[in-house]
Amino acid sequence: MSTAAVAVAPPPAPWSRTEFEERLRAEGAAYHIHHPFNRMLNGGRASVEQIRGWVANRYAYQATIPLKDAAIVSNCPDRAVRRAWIRRILDHDGHGHEAGGIEAWLRLAEAVGLRREEVEDQRHVVPGVRFAVDAYVDFARRRPWQEAVCASLTELFAPAIHRQRLAHWPEHYRWIDPDGLQYFRNRIGQAGRDVEEGLAITLDHFRSAEQQHRALAVLRFKLDVLWAMNDAMATRYGVAE
Amino acid sequence: MSTAAVAVAPPPAPWSRTEFEERLRAEGAAYHIHHPFNRMLNGGRASVEQIRGWVANRYAYQATIPLKDAAIVSNCPDRAVRRAWIRRILDHDGHGHEAGGIEAWLRLAEAVGLRREEVEDQRHVVPGVRFAVDAYVDFARRRPWQEAVCASLTELFAPAIHRQRLAHWPEHYRWIDPDGLQYFRNRIGQAGRDVEEGLAITLDHFRSAEQQHRALAVLRFKLDVLWAMNDAMATRYGVAE
Repeated sequence: MSTAAVAVAPPPAPWSRTEFEERLRAEGAAYHIHHPFNRMLNGGRASVEQIRGWVANRYAYQATIPLKDAAIVSNCPDRAVRRAWIRRILDHDGHGHEAGGIEAWLRLAEAVGLRREEVEDQRHVVPGVRFAVDAYVDFARRRPWQEAVCASLTELFAPAIHRQRLAHWPEHYRWIDPDGLQYFRNRIGQAGRDVEEGLAITLDHFRSAEQQHRALAVLRFKLDVLWAMNDAMATRYGVAE
Repeated sequence: MSTAAVAVAPPPAPWSRTEFEERLRAEGAAYHIHHPFNRMLNGGRASVEQIRGWVANRYAYQATIPLKDAAIVSNCPDRAVRRAWIRRILDHDGHGHEAGGIEAWLRLAEAVGLRREEVEDQRHVVPGVRFAVDAYVDFARRRPWQEAVCASLTELFAPAIHRQRLAHWPEHYRWIDPDGLQYFRNRIGQAGRDVEEGLAITLDHFRSAEQQHRALAVLRFKLDVLWAMNDAMATRYGVAE
């Protein structure tokens, strides 16, 4: 064997904070706002059955969000982070006289003609949606809490999809009581506030080039969760192009 | 082989709700209020070092309580239970202008002459305490949420030990600023309220004889956690009988 020194490449330089944030935001190209099933829904081409199917299936995701956020709290030894993050659980489950996001989703379900019980028992949830949702909460339970926070950054892209719903649903789906859309109105403000918090944690924690690439992979995993849910719903309910 | 019918004993009858509660309460005989290390502390025979050792080690338990409670929330699909249970996390971590139980414990630590940082970094925590605390949070993360709720029922016995501290510490340990004992005052009210909730869930969920015996085993496990913490502290700091 040669004893000559082997040239070892220096570790790659990390991106600046600004460039790292831009890279995270660029992942929005794979957000489910671009999925054919969502384009159909928000383009006004969905049938009553397709709307109901989406609302009933998406409930599986809504119902799991507090479990995901509680997993982050459970895995986080930083009290200041827990104190801030727990607000998300209060937002979704409700507290005191605040009904919360899950209740708002059930009101959306009623507005599209579903009964609460058939949504709450998740009888309409197709296996592909179930598996995607379970993969997300399992990830939050098992991975470091900073990765689960990073996964939540699909919220970067959520206000746009909620605005799309509010802009087009009342026009295209006049049979839906507009009061039922309150969930989307609530989340535009909440998601903006939440994402600032999750973004700061992510930019602070993932510092080396290797960690930054890991963060992008984590965000892509979460984008896959949302995309796979849409794939499964498209398979079950069809897509009108 | 004989084809004659084999007499199979019928499953044992479950205890009545009242008797089940009495059996749970009877487990208090193994509560750490009876441990020699606690008897020394609350009997006024502890040195400054033993008091400080207990406060610094017990912090490991205090700091873990919100992680345990968040694990219960994360594993619980019942929104009504989550909405009630999350209050424990708010109580311990604090919220808004409420400082919370962990902060109250840090003030106790300062009142007994410890610096916050040496408590928060848990440098004084002995391995036996660490392992017992980790066993408890691990149990809450992995077992059904009703079992983790049942494990919390050592709160049935907690007001007595807090009252003992408040009754004897000011008299025996005049060097401790009585303001530092606020944690114990707060917990007497909170523990009473919390235990009603946990007891109702346990009595409702563990119905068969087999389940009721499992509940007793779960409660004994948690009593072992607290007892083993005291064993480890007694080994490290000694016990004056």
